[in-house]
Amino acid sequence: MAILSALATEVLIPVAGVIGIAFAVVQWVLVSRVKLSPAAAAAGGSKNDYGDYLIEEEEGLNDHNVVVKCAEIQNAISEGATSFLFTEYQYVGIFMSIFAVVIFLFLGSVEGFSTKSQPCTYSVGKYCKPALFTALFSTASFLLGAITSLVSGFLGMKIATYANARTTLEARKGVGKAFITAFRSGAVMGFLLASSGLVVLYITINVFKLYYGDDWEGLFESITGYGLGGSSMALFGRVGGGIYTKAADVGADLVGKVERNIPEDDPRNPAVIADNVGDNVGDIAGMGSDLFGSYAESSCAALVVASISSFGINHDFTGMCYPLLVSSVGIIVCLITTLFATDFFEIKAVKEIEPALKKQLIISTALMTVGIAIISWLALPAKFTIFNFGTQKEVSNWGLFFCVAIGLWAGLIIGFVTEYYTSNAYSPVQDVADSCRTGAATNVIFGLALGYKSVIIPIFAIAVSIYVSFSIAAMYGIAVAALGMLSTIATGLAIDAYGPISDNAGGIAEMAGMSHRIRERTDALDAAGNTTAAIGKGFAIGSAALVSLALFGAFVSRAGVKVVDVLSPKVFIGLIVGAMLPYWFSAMTMKSVGSAALKMVEEVRRQFNTIPGLMEGTGKPDYATCVKISTDASIKEMIPPGALVMLTPLIVGTFFGVETLSGVLAGALVSGVQIAISASNTGGAWDNAKKYIEAAVIGDTIGDPLKDTSGPSLNILIKLMAVESLVFAPFFATHGGLLFKYL
Amino acid sequence: MAILSALATEVLIPVAGVIGIAFAVVQWVLVSRVKLSPAAAAAGGSKNDYGDYLIEEEEGLNDHNVVVKCAEIQNAISEGATSFLFTEYQYVGIFMSIFAVVIFLFLGSVEGFSTKSQPCTYSVGKYCKPALFTALFSTASFLLGAITSLVSGFLGMKIATYANARTTLEARKGVGKAFITAFRSGAVMGFLLASSGLVVLYITINVFKLYYGDDWEGLFESITGYGLGGSSMALFGRVGGGIYTKAADVGADLVGKVERNIPEDDPRNPAVIADNVGDNVGDIAGMGSDLFGSYAESSCAALVVASISSFGINHDFTGMCYPLLVSSVGIIVCLITTLFATDFFEIKAVKEIEPALKKQLIISTALMTVGIAIISWLALPAKFTIFNFGTQKEVSNWGLFFCVAIGLWAGLIIGFVTEYYTSNAYSPVQDVADSCRTGAATNVIFGLALGYKSVIIPIFAIAVSIYVSFSIAAMYGIAVAALGMLSTIATGLAIDAYGPISDNAGGIAEMAGMSHRIRERTDALDAAGNTTAAIGKGFAIGSAALVSLALFGAFVSRAGVKVVDVLSPKVFIGLIVGAMLPYWFSAMTMKSVGSAALKMVEEVRRQFNTIPGLMEGTGKPDYATCVKISTDASIKEMIPPGALVMLTPLIVGTFFGVETLSGVLAGALVSGVQIAISASNTGGAWDNAKKYIEAAVIGDTIGDPLKDTSGPSLNILIKLMAVESLVFAPFFATHGGLLFKYL
Repeated sequence: MAILSALATEVLIPVAGVIGIAFAVVQWVLVSRVKLSPAAAAAGGSKNDYGDYLIEEEEGLNDHNVVVKCAEIQNAISEGATSFLFTEYQYVGIFMSIFAVVIFLFLGSVEGFSTKSQPCTYSVGKYCKPALFTALFSTASFLLGAITSLVSGFLGMKIATYANARTTLEARKGVGKAFITAFRSGAVMGFLLASSGLVVLYITINVFKLYYGDDWEGLFESITGYGLGGSSMALFGRVGGGIYTKAADVGADLVGKVERNIPEDDPRNPAVIADNVGDNVGDIAGMGSDLFGSYAESSCAALVVASISSFGINHDFTGMCYPLLVSSVGIIVCLITTLFATDFFEIKAVKEIEPALKKQLIISTALMTVGIAIISWLALPAKFTIFNFGTQKEVSNWGLFFCVAIGLWAGLIIGFVTEYYTSNAYSPVQDVADSCRTGAATNVIFGLALGYKSVIIPIFAIAVSIYVSFSIAAMYGIAVAALGMLSTIATGLAIDAYGPISDNAGGIAEMAGMSHRIRERTDALDAAGNTTAAIGKGFAIGSAALVSLALFGAFVSRAGVKVVDVLSPKVFIGLIVGAMLPYWFSAMTMKSVGSAALKMVEEVRRQFNTIPGLMEGTGKPDYATCVKISTDASIKEMIPPGALVMLTPLIVGTFFGVETLSGVLAGALVSGVQIAISASNTGGAWDNAKKYIEAAVIGDTIGDPLKDTSGPSLNILIKLMAVESLVFAPFFATHGGLLFKYL
Repeated sequence: MAILSALATEVLIPVAGVIGIAFAVVQWVLVSRVKLSPAAAAAGGSKNDYGDYLIEEEEGLNDHNVVVKCAEIQNAISEGATSFLFTEYQYVGIFMSIFAVVIFLFLGSVEGFSTKSQPCTYSVGKYCKPALFTALFSTASFLLGAITSLVSGFLGMKIATYANARTTLEARKGVGKAFITAFRSGAVMGFLLASSGLVVLYITINVFKLYYGDDWEGLFESITGYGLGGSSMALFGRVGGGIYTKAADVGADLVGKVERNIPEDDPRNPAVIADNVGDNVGDIAGMGSDLFGSYAESSCAALVVASISSFGINHDFTGMCYPLLVSSVGIIVCLITTLFATDFFEIKAVKEIEPALKKQLIISTALMTVGIAIISWLALPAKFTIFNFGTQKEVSNWGLFFCVAIGLWAGLIIGFVTEYYTSNAYSPVQDVADSCRTGAATNVIFGLALGYKSVIIPIFAIAVSIYVSFSIAAMYGIAVAALGMLSTIATGLAIDAYGPISDNAGGIAEMAGMSHRIRERTDALDAAGNTTAAIGKGFAIGSAALVSLALFGAFVSRAGVKVVDVLSPKVFIGLIVGAMLPYWFSAMTMKSVGSAALKMVEEVRRQFNTIPGLMEGTGKPDYATCVKISTDASIKEMIPPGALVMLTPLIVGTFFGVETLSGVLAGALVSGVQIAISASNTGGAWDNAKKYIEAAVIGDTIGDPLKDTSGPSLNILIKLMAVESLVFAPFFATHGGLLFKYL
């Protein structure tokens, strides 16, 4: 048995969770020290730490007015975001309630709503809890996952809007101060999400165990609903938020920058508030839900496979909880890593920002490798067996360490490749910027080619991780590789959230009429933020690929499929249709952004044409109408792509059966991951090429929906279809494939 | 046995081929009646058939000068194209020679270059011809396929350049006259290719039979080299020609239309000759080679599967030749169909062009359905068996008819969907054009979304064809479904070639300084041509998907793989890497076009800036330098993507083995087909949106490499990798998978 006792495990996990939450609170307190009320700010002194005067004072601007204006704008953004999210949650709430009923009915029907114990699926000869109760618990964990995801996204948004004006004000003191404020705020979100995800999952397992007792098969089967809930919420968050933010962004840019030749985030632009709200509901809330979903799903995938392996069969609680222990260690490691950015070193110049963020990735990965080694040694028996499509495969604790580590390092490689392709420090983005010499068309051609090319190395990294981790520990190996990639999620989220916060800080500086030197500083933060956002998306996609494959494996096991043979026509048609789904989905989301942007453009043009003195700065734009256009469009347009993703597994499983569904999942996975990576890198590169040369603005606008709407939604597509198939696997295995049965 | 005797089959196939060639010659004679020498043209009368004066006379232009100028320009284009193709063929010739040696060495090594007879692969207990000789014959048929493909492309180009000035001159008489000239020229190419492909294949089989005698297994195994040769040539033709044409097109547009505001094809533009040459080497020669390759491969795939089914085992020659008989019937059907466009009806107005072309598709499909029914009844026994991964599956003649017919009709559906998404008669293109109101960025977003959306129905059509034809007759069913889709290839090629001919006719009218009313007529022809080009690409992609799957099945059978299990990590990593290859390939080709276009732009700018009087029309541009830039770029840049496609199966098969290679093929197929369809439809839609509203020119420029370089090359990628794997299957099965063997 393992060195770590079951009791120690029971203590260790919540302790790590609580430490993470406490750290988030500390960071929040530090951010809140930057005062947004003029009086307090004045009391704080008008010199920075090096004794220099603040820029405003040098330029003779009135500090009082600036602070008041920043506070006002922050309020407007925060209110807009809150109001949108509440509207979104109402619609999503209705959908979730209906879907919860569907889950209950479908899963309950597996054994005809019988309340009698049934023979277990895997443990031959034993009896397990009735399917009806597993249906009930699955539904409960689904709702719990959805709510946790919702709260995660909402809190993230609140923190980001709380932080952005503060970052702007700190930028007066220097780029280092601003960086720390933005980064700390990101850390609040990162640690809060990682820790609460862990704690809620942990509590749920312990509560469900009260009912399930020794039936771990049923226990962890019902727990998978948690992943489904988290991911469903993430889907709507990403799609809705993505459409919102990009409709506003594209609309604002097309009229403001291209037609009226006014700067980005200029307060005269009526869509500017909608744009800034969008950053918070799309990039922050959507992304928070997304990564939470990935985390929940990879944990669920690992747990459900473990429950039918020797850990589950022998009731080895510490071994079962290995996925949660890895995440616990991750929180501690990320905590130490954060200190390197906020306390151990100080940023003094613009050029130090990107290296500092890159160091975060390297440090967290290096420390985490040690952390995984320790926890693998402590928590795992030297030898154990893992379920492998009907047989049990022997694995050593060091083998499993290797699986987690390879996922972790593959993540780092993906991160670096993404950085290379999206940062304006390297030749790819410089080439794209250079191609603007001959106009927008060559810029777009080069950008698309860049995105396609950026797929190569990440795919090889994912392929090697899959091969190695599968060879060592079958589907469990892949699930823990995904967990490895996500184990430093707190740091990942921190640097990911940092981007939109800096972006908004720049917007607030512009809107508050602050000096262009402030804007230069926030722009530098933002440029690094674009790269980190792309890196974050790279992680999200890479982990999504591994997670989906692990979920796919769990689904196949649960559905009793032994072989998914490409040479079978049932599977092959699934494969080719599955590979088509990301295109269908992208078509919907891109068209939605395009149509909403068209409406936005017309409204912005109308305001410029009809409101007297708007261009001169004497008239006041009507921000609210633009906010309404974005809200209405995103609420209306998120339904069809959402329905496509949520209904496909149900329809395919019910009518075509588990084999075709396996094909669909594999096809969507291998095709979606490519489009997702290329879309997000193309968009990121265009965004940064624009910082290099303003003529690249057309590429940037095209890249907006690619990198912030369709691209990042695709990883949810592939994960969500897989986890949904897993949850409904008992139903499909019993009642699925109606069409082929009757043909 | 079948009604049709072996002797009748031996007669019927070459007769159909000869009729096709004769018909092509007749069409050519009819086209050649349009005289390009001024004296003869004058003798032909200066009124059209309705007694109206020609436009030039109405507008007082000198007919003599116009005809002389047209002849001159045609000469320049023809010379440029010939010279490029000769240069291209030199490089490709070297590559082909090396590859021929590789084929011989790899396949010869299977049995250690032994000259002794060996036990057959499938017919247990029998002895087959030595692997060494099969290596030799495979190499020979490879070279033969390559040469046939090369000649097909070259002849197509010659016909097209012969026809384009004639189309321009006929446009003076009316749109109907011009249409018939362009269409007849397309038909020359279509019938010549379809017939010569059939005849060469037929002769090769009969010659090889002299050596192989009763060893049909070896005979048809060595025949697959023909498909590989045709497709390899097509790859270089498509990629090289695609880069050539789009570098020139993009370069010409960017300076001419965008910067200098002069019309398309204006003779002052130094890149204009290169642009027109490009249409002939890319869209005509490349496309001819491509479709010839598809035809050769689907025939080979069907033949190789048939040889190990009851046809081959029982030596039923008529049954074996069923694929060739279907093609023979196709030639006769297409011949009748052509008459509907050229003789039975006459086009009097611009709006009748698209319906006339659409009718070609419908008539050929309807007639062909009857044709297939008859030939299936005549040539097939009522019951026979088909090889199905180790077992034999019983199939009826009507079942097989159904397989061919479903492929044929799936092709029609793909054609119509493509038309819907790329013709400016319907809302999708109108929406894209409309989105230009808000600038180039929304135009691009809408265009990309349109391309993604246009994938949905074709994929369902392909999926249904695959499911049905596989269920009926395993991999043979899929091979004949592909043949069904390609059975009307003569008509398909005719309407496909018609497009670039009309495009060039418009270019010549512009360059010869003819009336803008002539240009309006050729533009109308060209707009219909853009749609038919997209339809042609749709067919090419759809058939490529079916062909590759059939080849994949044949490869798997030959390599002795029984199951391609997605759950095996060896297969899965193949799948995900295979799905990545189309992105890698597209990145290379798009970047090549972009870089070459940059060079072209600089040269064109330089000429406008340094040649005195160029803009005023008094100075003469230096066309030759632009031709050289396109030539050099395409020759240099076609090597890396070509190498990627040709080497991947060799490397994967040799080092990772047949299972991983199976995954790579399946992944490339399901991913590549989506990108190919969306790229070609996006490009086609942008091109036609531009005809609608000139502001869409940026989209059009971006679409150029998508629709004419990377998109159409992708179907060659998926077919070629499959046929190459099939040819090398004996080697991989014996010596492959080195890496996994020694790890």
